[in-house]
Amino acid sequence: MANQTGRRIVIEPPPLRPLKGYASGKLLLGPGPTNVAQRVADASQPMISHGDPSSFKLLLKETKLGLRYVFQTRNEFTFAITSSGTGAMEATVANILEDGDVFLVAVHGLWGQRAVDMGKAHGAKVVQLHAPTFGAVIDGKQFEEALARHRPKLMYVCHGDSTTGTLQPLEGLGAMCRKYNCLLMVDAIASLLSAPVPMDDLGIDVLLTASQKALNVQPGLAPISFSDGAIQVIQQRKSPLKTYYFDIMKIADNWQCNGKAYFHHTQAISLIKALHESLVMITEASSLEAIISHQNEVSHYLQSKLEQLGLVLLVKKAQHRLPSVIVVQVPEAIDGHKVQLKLLADHGIEIAGGLGGLPPKGQIWRIGLMGASATRANCDALLAALKSVLVPTSKL
Amino acid sequence: MANQTGRRIVIEPPPLRPLKGYASGKLLLGPGPTNVAQRVADASQPMISHGDPSSFKLLLKETKLGLRYVFQTRNEFTFAITSSGTGAMEATVANILEDGDVFLVAVHGLWGQRAVDMGKAHGAKVVQLHAPTFGAVIDGKQFEEALARHRPKLMYVCHGDSTTGTLQPLEGLGAMCRKYNCLLMVDAIASLLSAPVPMDDLGIDVLLTASQKALNVQPGLAPISFSDGAIQVIQQRKSPLKTYYFDIMKIADNWQCNGKAYFHHTQAISLIKALHESLVMITEASSLEAIISHQNEVSHYLQSKLEQLGLVLLVKKAQHRLPSVIVVQVPEAIDGHKVQLKLLADHGIEIAGGLGGLPPKGQIWRIGLMGASATRANCDALLAALKSVLVPTSKL
Repeated sequence: MANQTGRRIVIEPPPLRPLKGYASGKLLLGPGPTNVAQRVADASQPMISHGDPSSFKLLLKETKLGLRYVFQTRNEFTFAITSSGTGAMEATVANILEDGDVFLVAVHGLWGQRAVDMGKAHGAKVVQLHAPTFGAVIDGKQFEEALARHRPKLMYVCHGDSTTGTLQPLEGLGAMCRKYNCLLMVDAIASLLSAPVPMDDLGIDVLLTASQKALNVQPGLAPISFSDGAIQVIQQRKSPLKTYYFDIMKIADNWQCNGKAYFHHTQAISLIKALHESLVMITEASSLEAIISHQNEVSHYLQSKLEQLGLVLLVKKAQHRLPSVIVVQVPEAIDGHKVQLKLLADHGIEIAGGLGGLPPKGQIWRIGLMGASATRANCDALLAALKSVLVPTSKL
Repeated sequence: MANQTGRRIVIEPPPLRPLKGYASGKLLLGPGPTNVAQRVADASQPMISHGDPSSFKLLLKETKLGLRYVFQTRNEFTFAITSSGTGAMEATVANILEDGDVFLVAVHGLWGQRAVDMGKAHGAKVVQLHAPTFGAVIDGKQFEEALARHRPKLMYVCHGDSTTGTLQPLEGLGAMCRKYNCLLMVDAIASLLSAPVPMDDLGIDVLLTASQKALNVQPGLAPISFSDGAIQVIQQRKSPLKTYYFDIMKIADNWQCNGKAYFHHTQAISLIKALHESLVMITEASSLEAIISHQNEVSHYLQSKLEQLGLVLLVKKAQHRLPSVIVVQVPEAIDGHKVQLKLLADHGIEIAGGLGGLPPKGQIWRIGLMGASATRANCDALLAALKSVLVPTSKL
């Protein structure tokens, strides 16, 4: 049959089949996405519209309150961007930096490298501050020296780098940045709820995370918060913004941060509803500290069990280990990637390998214990599976 | 209790409550988001990971096939971006245009104006081609004259503009663009499945839509397809890209378009799963033409019923009416916004008002019949509600 333009449909319908059969549930113990509680998934439905003034407005208002609690901030400009965490990084860089501005980037894994690429794409003068090795962090003195020498407008610090398993200490950085009139941007995508990151108290100007990590929400949302100082810098830009989608002032209006409602773009409403439910669950816990303490305890349990198996962790200093992503060095005789595939196929458990060549595929495993995934039962299931996979393939 | 940094939690948990109570289901008859079938919502669970080679690879492969069917294209570079439709517009502009390139934009509503703003943000020389009035479309001759005169690198045409309810004819534009060595970008966000848009046959270089329209998926994904010609232009850029997140070649790698798997960012996996289910449903219909014919029939039914009520449609020429979004002029004596609120509160039905001041709030209603929402039962429910709301408030 010819269609209305007189043209024939030439591409025949493909033989698609419902996913249930082959995309069944696995225990996701990589660095995100995580399993999503049925309660959170159910909250996505029914769909509501941004045009519904009562329910949508309340959804945004409550979600904002929940995020302010998780971030420990009083910032009015606290919301979630419809993108991955990378989108929130880009939004920050694109809104704060102008051509030629100095952007200081702490690099202790892939995410710092990504911030470097992003800064360059947006015309900034990027200065890099590297950790001595992968698995190590950057010293406070190095930060102070770099701030004094380069006088950056913005500094990026990845709190927890999921590619190396490092937890970068943040203490003192806020005061240091203020001293040198620099805005402090902290990427807590992987670290949230596994280490405290009280935004206001630490003097952080931009704090960002992603929905699919410890918040245990489906991927596609990037919660973010901006201090008044950061918003002021954005409002006082001399050159026009080079992005439309990631225009922070317009997204803030979308979230009715200035009291006015403005339609910028259609947000991932079902994911915001899911995020809201996740935040309800977080407020149901006795405290944020209790969530973090429990996560840390479970992580230490798994770390010690892995070491008892003779495995070596990439991060040598215990205090620099990111509790939510444990990076294990694969013993030389073992093909790490094969072990991952076997864990997935035979035991339905997913852990991750190296990302972005840091270090190469097959040489490390990355085990995520994010949010509700951090249970002793999950650790025990993984340990049992790992033992049964490793025993026949090596002398371990 | 002090946390591990010795700091007290100062922001107390807010009194959030589960959404069920206040965000119950409404009949969404605005221009999107639409109601989402339970079958589609259910497909979001269980969460799978991009690290799971078998299920994730198959999900992407099948989703790509489904999108190629809906778009009627053989393009290898066919996928969905984790963003709203606005993000897909920005991705196109950011990847194809370089500083000073001429960008011709057809403006027959808000979305053309948005493309203009986007082009300017990305450093292009923007030339606008306006419809004579809101509710009218642009003549083929105007396009040819503008192409000949301005020799643009890229032309943006909104196929169906949801703010004015206009359907811009596309016939001949592909050949015209090829003649003048210009890439043709068509925004089918609102028009998909309500008017044929066979991409390859029409000579379209970039075709984009959004998940929350006729695909009846939750918002947060923007399906898009690039012709080989468009990809070639992107690959031959002289200047570096000014975006990281929207790097089309990297997103294509994320979708394994070049045979290689590369991690660019974490995509909205649950929404891709939902999109897959929506595509399964579309392939279950007898044909794309059947879907479009049915939608058109329902739209004509509602249009004539609205006219029988004495209401006037903004778009005068029937052939220029976008079947999926019917724009009604609010009679002078009536407060259009009040009617919307009453429809929502008393009848649980949502229709939209004007967007972006085109025309001002309260002066038009926008009624969406998108995908599965296009049923006579929905039209009848709306008509009955509209009558009962209008009778006491006016002489209608």
